[in-house]
Amino acid sequence: MQLLKDRILKDGNVAPGGILKVDSFLNHQIDIDLLNEIGKEFKRLFSDVKVDKILTVEASGIGIACIAAQYFGVPVVFAKKAKSKNIDGGVFTSSVQSFTYGKTYDLIVSIKFLKPDENILIIDDFLASGKAMFGLVDIVKQAGANVSGVGIVIEKGFQGGGEKLRKMGINHKSLAVIKSMDEEGNLEFEDEE
Amino acid sequence: MQLLKDRILKDGNVAPGGILKVDSFLNHQIDIDLLNEIGKEFKRLFSDVKVDKILTVEASGIGIACIAAQYFGVPVVFAKKAKSKNIDGGVFTSSVQSFTYGKTYDLIVSIKFLKPDENILIIDDFLASGKAMFGLVDIVKQAGANVSGVGIVIEKGFQGGGEKLRKMGINHKSLAVIKSMDEEGNLEFEDEE
Repeated sequence: MQLLKDRILKDGNVAPGGILKVDSFLNHQIDIDLLNEIGKEFKRLFSDVKVDKILTVEASGIGIACIAAQYFGVPVVFAKKAKSKNIDGGVFTSSVQSFTYGKTYDLIVSIKFLKPDENILIIDDFLASGKAMFGLVDIVKQAGANVSGVGIVIEKGFQGGGEKLRKMGINHKSLAVIKSMDEEGNLEFEDEE
Repeated sequence: MQLLKDRILKDGNVAPGGILKVDSFLNHQIDIDLLNEIGKEFKRLFSDVKVDKILTVEASGIGIACIAAQYFGVPVVFAKKAKSKNIDGGVFTSSVQSFTYGKTYDLIVSIKFLKPDENILIIDDFLASGKAMFGLVDIVKQAGANVSGVGIVIEKGFQGGGEKLRKMGINHKSLAVIKSMDEEGNLEFEDEE
């Protein structure tokens, strides 16, 4: 998605530790016009699959999922992150090791909001090694629902998460895939299919 | 807002400890059509004030703020919640005591995203005692920006937060104000102005 790539080159920057900061338009301050273009692009890419619900994870996935959901005409469910192991009954839960924070947390979704045989599109802002994404896929499978697809705004192509999703046979699309980046701010995208 | 009150009566329920659960349509699963009606209503209520940006707080405020922002044509900034006292430079921060979780956390907004003299509409899902809201107002004031208004989806009128906002002279509107509720599920709304 050229508009997104241009914006990443213009306003993104690479922070120490290999973190791409896009907080001026995607995950702290949010450009709603850009989010609408992202939502339309997800609808275009997933126009051929059945989507009953969009699943994302707090916090930065929520805005993207809500704006995109308008183009699909479906509700959004967001997984909550909890540090506690004291989870109430009535929830699906999956444990995730966080690269960014160096600790483990649980993803939690109430069993009320994912039903067997529902078709779920998972949307998130970033895909790197994919640990949070595999947690979401795990939760959809626990519910007996189907993963219709995985839509990612920015994928770090060199961190392996996308490759693993492809090996699992999951229909996965990323709007911008970063091939390489370094701390001098050089950033290269993979070509679009 | 009658549509919202009807929905609260239909799908909300009162959990032990005086917690109103609206997780089937507002803060875990999200009804995007309802959010659009909420966004339009905020625009109607704040049509006479200048709004340059919408400020909210993670996680459940984000979807509401993003959908509403479409009607105002402005970007969204969401405050992050952090338990750590080790805050980097370059942020506005305000300490909040949480009623729900019985602990203190910091609200954080990068100084890059709130500028002096900007007109800020603060939006959130709930207003009870108002502690999180006063943290957001504090952050706007630290930035030298103006609070154009405070828009709340559901206010617990009996917990004092709304009254305090009025005493501070803040232009505050809630779409549904709960006058009383009990654990048998009886729930009464205040009349609309």
